[in-house]
Amino acid sequence: MAGAIRVAVDALGGDRGPEAVVAGALAARSETVEPVLFGPAGLDSAGLELVTTTQAIEMHEKPADAVRGKPDSSLVAACRAVHEGWAEAVVSAGNTGAMLASCLVYMRRLPGVLRPAIAVMVPTPKGPSVLVDAGANADCRPEHLLQFAVMGSIFAEEILDVRRPCIRLLSIGEEPEKGNQLTLQAHELLAASSLPFAGNVESRWLLAHAADVVVCDGFTGNVCLKLLEGTIRTTLDWLRSEIAATPGGKLGGLLVRPAARRLRAHLDPDTYGGAYLLGLRGVAVIAHGNSSPAAITSAIRLAARGVEHGVVAKLGQRMAEEPADDRVSIRAPSESNVQER
Amino acid sequence: MAGAIRVAVDALGGDRGPEAVVAGALAARSETVEPVLFGPAGLDSAGLELVTTTQAIEMHEKPADAVRGKPDSSLVAACRAVHEGWAEAVVSAGNTGAMLASCLVYMRRLPGVLRPAIAVMVPTPKGPSVLVDAGANADCRPEHLLQFAVMGSIFAEEILDVRRPCIRLLSIGEEPEKGNQLTLQAHELLAASSLPFAGNVESRWLLAHAADVVVCDGFTGNVCLKLLEGTIRTTLDWLRSEIAATPGGKLGGLLVRPAARRLRAHLDPDTYGGAYLLGLRGVAVIAHGNSSPAAITSAIRLAARGVEHGVVAKLGQRMAEEPADDRVSIRAPSESNVQER
Repeated sequence: MAGAIRVAVDALGGDRGPEAVVAGALAARSETVEPVLFGPAGLDSAGLELVTTTQAIEMHEKPADAVRGKPDSSLVAACRAVHEGWAEAVVSAGNTGAMLASCLVYMRRLPGVLRPAIAVMVPTPKGPSVLVDAGANADCRPEHLLQFAVMGSIFAEEILDVRRPCIRLLSIGEEPEKGNQLTLQAHELLAASSLPFAGNVESRWLLAHAADVVVCDGFTGNVCLKLLEGTIRTTLDWLRSEIAATPGGKLGGLLVRPAARRLRAHLDPDTYGGAYLLGLRGVAVIAHGNSSPAAITSAIRLAARGVEHGVVAKLGQRMAEEPADDRVSIRAPSESNVQER
Repeated sequence: MAGAIRVAVDALGGDRGPEAVVAGALAARSETVEPVLFGPAGLDSAGLELVTTTQAIEMHEKPADAVRGKPDSSLVAACRAVHEGWAEAVVSAGNTGAMLASCLVYMRRLPGVLRPAIAVMVPTPKGPSVLVDAGANADCRPEHLLQFAVMGSIFAEEILDVRRPCIRLLSIGEEPEKGNQLTLQAHELLAASSLPFAGNVESRWLLAHAADVVVCDGFTGNVCLKLLEGTIRTTLDWLRSEIAATPGGKLGGLLVRPAARRLRAHLDPDTYGGAYLLGLRGVAVIAHGNSSPAAITSAIRLAARGVEHGVVAKLGQRMAEEPADDRVSIRAPSESNVQER
């Protein structure tokens, strides 16, 4: 398929085994998208192109060591394919830290980007919000948050078709003076920037469309993401057990089951395609570790959409245009958890 | 009522007006608990003792300024009553920051306590967890988190009757090496302490009883608390609107309504009595700003329970006993958002 977007897919990523990944990749194949699998010789690739690799990175390996020690792993080889130009995007449901490290080493940051960040779409009744950083950078400085806002906006514009996305800073009060040292300083930078910054927002609104783009450090973002997932699950499970406690409830439970299923579908992380790495010289998507074939398909489509919309080029252009804040240009990204080679 | 525990109650705290506070205080009155109201002359105190005050702190005043500028406000006067010894505990549903500042100024820290912290009970299907710090200290150092763990344990033992409570540190992965600089260092301190520390826990388990005591900095804790509240509400509202979308669903909705009500009652912050300030020379409870009379009653009972169980004395004793970590004894609490006079 000449002209189709080639997406490198790590066949060994994911807790459900390569079969789930292959099935998801096959379903994502279209006239415009060509998934290319990376995995061991002998893998049943269901007719998809297979690039054979000899190593595998496990879910609990230390990211930096794994990436350094296993250059011919399916995950690393898939990232390298983007760097070498014969794939345009990479998708893995494997070890998140290793994927991040591998992307930093083999795909590298765009010029001007201090820290690549993870953007995830949070489903809400009013459509998705973009949460950035959802976990790439556990310790951040205020200027990082400013860049996350810029990158998150481009993501919202290109992937979610939002014009001039509204940006808010996640904090513990709406007033500018509420927060910790990081958010207080980030608030100042955002307020002084040319971005459509609408101030702080409290986490209570995260599932109710707090903003088009919600900015925070990667520790807070990851805590929020996991708390959202866990709280939704526990709330619905708890309700189900209360419903099952009485005969009338049980009958009602049967009748509301379709509604509960619709809600779960809205909230299902599988339909959102996973975590998008912003700030790299290529498109990279990290699917949920426990990804179903449908989740892999969504992740590949999300990656392909990033390529179609030229997210990398647009991001590179904006980062070059943005008049750099003094602090942004002076400080080097020396605290990065995962160092580039 | 000689021998009854006297609880100073700020009648002007709360969005629902003094009537709600008075009604809640009246309901909390018993043979062992005597609420004393603090508010303006002429307030209908429904037969409860009223200490008249001439000033009021509004919800959006700056805490430190309000406390300094309004020494005869109902909130400050109620705190002072504890300091002066003619009440044993204070309860307010007013401005949280002002309450915190007022407690620091008028009730003061216990010796050895670096930073008083807010403990809240998070309802779960397996009984409450204690989350500490839920918002008193937006910026923390590792040794603060160690003290939060000690104080949270005493709260769990005395207020929740948990023997040797299990403590976990909130982070973004269960492995000790996952987290930000603060949690990495706090993990080391906790692991080296004599506390029953069970390692890191992810936020996804917070509503599923992550531990008896979950420790984190006040920014993260406040984000989690608000995200829990908002996510539960949005999830249930969203489910309700899906249920209402079909006739079958509507019928089912009627049948599951009692179950939903039971769930809401379990999750209702009003039944938990509010936020408990740990580390002061007296008992202080901050009720939700939007408190119903029932919430005020719960808050007063929670405060009285703290007095009955001698939480302050036990905390003071433990803080004096605990062989102070070097860093704990060396560093002064100079970064506190709200300074003592």
